Amino acid sequence: MFENTQNSKIDSLGEFGLIEHLTKVFTNTQPSTIKGVGDDAAVIDCGDKYMLISNDILLEGVHFDFVYTPLKHLGYKAVASNVSDIAAMNGTATQILVSIGLSSKITLEAIEEVYAGINAACEHYKVDLVGGDTSSSQKGFFISVTAIGFVEKDKIVYRKGASKAELVCVSGDLGGAYTGYMLLEREKRLFLENPEIQPDMEGNDYILQRQLKPEARTDIIKIFDSLKITPTSMIDVSDGVSSELHHLAKQSNVGFVIYEEKLPIDQNTFDKARELGLDPTVCALNGGEDYELLFTLKQSDYDKVKNSTDISIIGYVTELEEGINMISRSGNKHKLEAQGWQHT
Amino acid sequence: MFENTQNSKIDSLGEFGLIEHLTKVFTNTQPSTIKGVGDDAAVIDCGDKYMLISNDILLEGVHFDFVYTPLKHLGYKAVASNVSDIAAMNGTATQILVSIGLSSKITLEAIEEVYAGINAACEHYKVDLVGGDTSSSQKGFFISVTAIGFVEKDKIVYRKGASKAELVCVSGDLGGAYTGYMLLEREKRLFLENPEIQPDMEGNDYILQRQLKPEARTDIIKIFDSLKITPTSMIDVSDGVSSELHHLAKQSNVGFVIYEEKLPIDQNTFDKARELGLDPTVCALNGGEDYELLFTLKQSDYDKVKNSTDISIIGYVTELEEGINMISRSGNKHKLEAQGWQHT
Repeated sequence: MFENTQNSKIDSLGEFGLIEHLTKVFTNTQPSTIKGVGDDAAVIDCGDKYMLISNDILLEGVHFDFVYTPLKHLGYKAVASNVSDIAAMNGTATQILVSIGLSSKITLEAIEEVYAGINAACEHYKVDLVGGDTSSSQKGFFISVTAIGFVEKDKIVYRKGASKAELVCVSGDLGGAYTGYMLLEREKRLFLENPEIQPDMEGNDYILQRQLKPEARTDIIKIFDSLKITPTSMIDVSDGVSSELHHLAKQSNVGFVIYEEKLPIDQNTFDKARELGLDPTVCALNGGEDYELLFTLKQSDYDKVKNSTDISIIGYVTELEEGINMISRSGNKHKLEAQGWQHT
Repeated sequence: MFENTQNSKIDSLGEFGLIEHLTKVFTNTQPSTIKGVGDDAAVIDCGDKYMLISNDILLEGVHFDFVYTPLKHLGYKAVASNVSDIAAMNGTATQILVSIGLSSKITLEAIEEVYAGINAACEHYKVDLVGGDTSSSQKGFFISVTAIGFVEKDKIVYRKGASKAELVCVSGDLGGAYTGYMLLEREKRLFLENPEIQPDMEGNDYILQRQLKPEARTDIIKIFDSLKITPTSMIDVSDGVSSELHHLAKQSNVGFVIYEEKLPIDQNTFDKARELGLDPTVCALNGGEDYELLFTLKQSDYDKVKNSTDISIIGYVTELEEGINMISRSGNKHKLEAQGWQHT
């Protein structure tokens, strides 16, 4: 009835195009719906504050590989990535619901480990587990996390809102999670070729943690609050800075210029990327899963962030027509595609 | 690391025991968390009202079979079953988030059909689609729906709250969804044995609709409001009346007596169950997926519901020690197990 060996139509739409395509005929009628599909979280009016809500699914074989993903870290990451979506709206996560699909291969001890990670994340981020569902999945394990949070109405930040000449900023550093992933994939390949070989993970703690146990930048939201900063637009870096810049550009109707030399890349990330034959700039732009916050600020906030060790100013906002460009170290201007950047 | 061919520990806990086991070490610290795990929906304080939130997952091969589930109905049912969870707290659903896992076999046209059903349900129940996620699932299709709703603080109804001598009531009729399921399974078996045979569905519209396109009883919530009734406890019938009575009993610390002859069973359900060699009472008690509301009322509400065609009084609340019992048509008393009732 619905089987088809080729899925060219779905592939050509892409994930974001597919959601847009499927939801374009839907109309919102509830007065409490402030923002529906198309941001990091949905926004619902509930009186004094806005409630934020997001849902993400992590699938075995797509988002994680049991060969090298510790189960406790998997539980932790599932929560952290959703808390990050709430932070990307300048909100604070307060509750989560977790539903899991259990494959027949999984043991009770394994599920307990996943929940130990979920519990560790709940304690760290001060969120309550309030619901969920378990189902036996015939085919593979997955976790679905719904995160709920709140934000003051005058503090909410959307992907929409950036204006020309504003500053483009990013928290922390970039490319570590992707470099960690590439290292894990290499070691997995070597192990599968020769199970006698012990994986070489020494000295790679930083990038491995970036991949396996990322943190949501809830601390940055607190810094905004203490510095009395409200970003004009914001998104979290789950698919890579290039992709996220395209989301901000599309929803804010602006363009961007960013500087290669301003991209914050940790030395460990840089060195390991090189060793793995990767361009550190490509890792930073395309890598994804860093769960840092990418945001725009009014120029008047410059003094508040210029000396921050947690926030880097990487460029500025331009007109829509100019598109999204990166000035390379050598001073050349390159168009940034959503899929990232290739040396030309 | 986690593989195990036998899952006896998980099986012995059961779905509800597993959730209890996994979540017992979690503690809630957010003041806005009113009710966490263990009811039809989580309850979050958001000022004037309580917000209700629930999440359910429908999995291919577990919750539905593509052989006989029309895709549009699948989308509709995924929404209706979650709207029903909100109704079970005496609330009104207002928004949903839908995440889907796409198997490589599924076409764009098939997904569009699923979303057409989701849209039809959104329009029928007046809920807005506000978010979600799509992922390519290597292994099978699934839908995860998160429903959000609201209820006045003094109108919320939990599973907890029933008291001795109150009335036990159920909306609509029971067993239709299960009988429809058994009919579809029979026709599937016959078709697989001999693909020349056309399925015999004539005259079975009612039970097929009960299985394939169930409705959430949002109309009953409106009746409660107009009659100024607030049930003392409530749950929706997703796993069968027997199982739901055990949930109400456990959380309310009560027992129940129900009468076999009072169980509302539609004539179509009754006749088809008999034809399929099933006991209609067993279908009504164990069937599940009827999405009717099972609730307890104060005796003083008796006059308000005694002549209702939408609500049946099926028994009364007893002491915890008495357990859950059914008085059969022949006047014998049978203990009702969570898994239902067997002729003795």
